[in-house]
Amino acid sequence: MRILIDAMGGDNAPGAIVQGAVTAAGEFGAEVVLVGREAEVRECLERCGGGKRVSVVNADEVITMEDDPSTATRRKKNSSMSLALQMLHQGEGDACVSAGSTGALLSGATLTVRRIPGIRRACFAPVVPNGERGVIIADCGANAECTAEYLLQFAYMGSFYSQEILGCDAPRVGLLNIGTEESKGTALQKETYALLTQADVEGRLRFVGNVEPTQLLSGQVDVVVCDGFSGNVLLKSVEGTAGFLMNRLKKTLTRSTANKLAALVLRNDLGELKALLDVSEVGGTPLLGLTRPVIKAHGSSDARAIRSAVKQAIACVEADVCGRIEKNIAQMRIKNT
Amino acid sequence: MRILIDAMGGDNAPGAIVQGAVTAAGEFGAEVVLVGREAEVRECLERCGGGKRVSVVNADEVITMEDDPSTATRRKKNSSMSLALQMLHQGEGDACVSAGSTGALLSGATLTVRRIPGIRRACFAPVVPNGERGVIIADCGANAECTAEYLLQFAYMGSFYSQEILGCDAPRVGLLNIGTEESKGTALQKETYALLTQADVEGRLRFVGNVEPTQLLSGQVDVVVCDGFSGNVLLKSVEGTAGFLMNRLKKTLTRSTANKLAALVLRNDLGELKALLDVSEVGGTPLLGLTRPVIKAHGSSDARAIRSAVKQAIACVEADVCGRIEKNIAQMRIKNT
Repeated sequence: MRILIDAMGGDNAPGAIVQGAVTAAGEFGAEVVLVGREAEVRECLERCGGGKRVSVVNADEVITMEDDPSTATRRKKNSSMSLALQMLHQGEGDACVSAGSTGALLSGATLTVRRIPGIRRACFAPVVPNGERGVIIADCGANAECTAEYLLQFAYMGSFYSQEILGCDAPRVGLLNIGTEESKGTALQKETYALLTQADVEGRLRFVGNVEPTQLLSGQVDVVVCDGFSGNVLLKSVEGTAGFLMNRLKKTLTRSTANKLAALVLRNDLGELKALLDVSEVGGTPLLGLTRPVIKAHGSSDARAIRSAVKQAIACVEADVCGRIEKNIAQMRIKNT
Repeated sequence: MRILIDAMGGDNAPGAIVQGAVTAAGEFGAEVVLVGREAEVRECLERCGGGKRVSVVNADEVITMEDDPSTATRRKKNSSMSLALQMLHQGEGDACVSAGSTGALLSGATLTVRRIPGIRRACFAPVVPNGERGVIIADCGANAECTAEYLLQFAYMGSFYSQEILGCDAPRVGLLNIGTEESKGTALQKETYALLTQADVEGRLRFVGNVEPTQLLSGQVDVVVCDGFSGNVLLKSVEGTAGFLMNRLKKTLTRSTANKLAALVLRNDLGELKALLDVSEVGGTPLLGLTRPVIKAHGSSDARAIRSAVKQAIACVEADVCGRIEKNIAQMRIKNT
C-alpha cells in the first residue's frame, strides 16, 4: 500500500509532515511517498534519520493560504498538493493526506480524484471525540448549501465510515435540528427527515430522528447529518468552547501556590480530560464521496497528528470505504431524479 | 413599573416562579403581577411569606409542552401566558416574563403584543457569557429561515440591546460564518455582509466582518448576527460542550480520595469557573422587535433565574429598548422594499 503525502501543506510543513510520515511508515508498514520540494524534504528526512519505505517525489510549487482555493490546484499544477492528487488519480498511490488549504484540497480533489458516479457532493466527515467511539459530523463545511439528496448521501457515507473505520455495527444517524419534533427546522430538514425515515423503514440505515447539539457529546448518536454551514458552526463551537474552558481551567489551576499543588495531584487525570478532546489523536477529516480516500489533516498538525492521519488513510484503504459507497450507490439516489 | 409574570410556565412553576418574582419585587422595587391559577399561586405566595408590591391575576388554563406552539395562545385564551401577553398589549404592565413554551411565547407575543411597524421578524437574542460582558446571539431560534433584511434588523436590535442593557458603547457586530473571508457562506451571508458593510460605512453600526464560533468566547465581538437555525446550533453547542466538560471535570475530581482533597483546595476557584457559564446569572432571553419587552426565561429556571429575568425586564423598560428600535426603524429597512 502506498500513501501519498503533501509534504508542503500545513503550518509545520515540511518538518512535522516528514517526521509524522516516517513514523507512520515504520509503525504501520505502509509505503509513504512525500511529495514536495525535494531538497527541503530530503533535508527533513535526514534530520529525522531517514526511514524505510519512504520515497520523495519533487514538486516545485506550494499552494499557500493566499491562493484562491477554487483555482489553486489548476493554477499550480506542479504544486505538492496537485501532484499528490494527480498521482492518486493515476493509481500511483492508494490514498492521499494533506494538511494544506482545506478549500484547495476540496476543489482539487473533486476535480482530479473525482466523485464516485452518482454522488452529488463530497463531504467532510470529521469524528468529534466524546469519550466513547466519537461522533461523525457530515457535512462539516464542504457544502454551505445543500439539498435533501446530498444529506441522504452524507447519511449513508457517514454510516459506512462509522461501520468500517470506527467499528460501529449499526450506526445511529441523527439529523441536526433545532428541536426533536419532526416539524422543526427549514424545508431542508423536513425533506431530509422524510428521506431518512424512508431509508430507515427500508432497513438501509438506522435513523434515530432529529438531534440537537447537546445530544452529540452524550453518546446518543453515531453520525450527525447536516448542511456544511451548520456542521461547521457545530464543530467550531464545540472546539471553541472546549478550548475556552480548558484555558480557563489552566488559569484557575495556576492562580495560587495551593492551586498549583492541588493541580499536581490531579495532573494525570486532567491530562486524560484534555486528551479526550484532542484532535491530534483522532487524525484527520476524510473527504467522503471521492473515488479514492483523501484525508485532510488539520492545518496546525504536528508529527503525531500526521502519523494519525496516515494511519486513518491506511484504514480507509484496507476497509475499502470508497468501494462500499460505490456498491451502494443505487440506494443513495432519489428515485425521481 | 409593573412586570407581568406567567406564573405557570416552566418546569418549576409555580413555586420557583413565585419565589423569584417575590425576591425581585423586594429587591428592585418594581410591582410584579403573577398571572396563573390563583389558588395555587396564592399558596406559593404564602409559603414564601408573601411580598410587597405583588398581586395575583387568575388564569384558569396552562399552556403545556404538548400544546401546538403556533396555536397555543389562541386556543387557550385564558391561559396564564395568553393573559399576561394580553395585559401587556393593553398597557396593564410594562414587560412580560415567561418560562413557558418557547414556541408558544414567540407566536403568542408576535400575535398579541405585535411587532414594531417595519420590523420583519422578532428575534431571540440571548447573552452568552464569556467571562467579560458577554456576547449577544441574534437570532437564536425564532426564525429558522431568514432574509438578509431580517439579519440587518437583528444587527441593529442586538446593538441597541448591547448598548442599553450591557453598557457597551460601540458594540462590535460580527456575522456568523464558516470563515472570515467576504466570499464565505451561502447567498444569505454574502447579501447580509454587503448590507452590514454599508451600514458600517454610513456610521450606523459597527460591523467587524465575518466571525467564526471560536471568536465568540474570546471576546472579539459583542453581537453575533445569524439565522435562527445556525444561532440555535451555536448556542446549544456551547451549552452542550460546557455541560459535557464540567460533568467530566466533576467525575475527575471525585475519582479518588487524593483527587477529592485536591478538589477541596480548588473549590472556590472552580465554582467561579462554573458560574462563568451559568445561565441563571444571565437572566432570560429577550424577544426583540416587539412593541414591549418580552423575556423568555429558561424552562428549567429556578427562583434565582426568575429573579434575574425580572431584573432584566425592568432594565429593558427603564432603558426603553423598544423605543430605541422604533425611533431607528428608517435605517433598518432595505430601501428597495
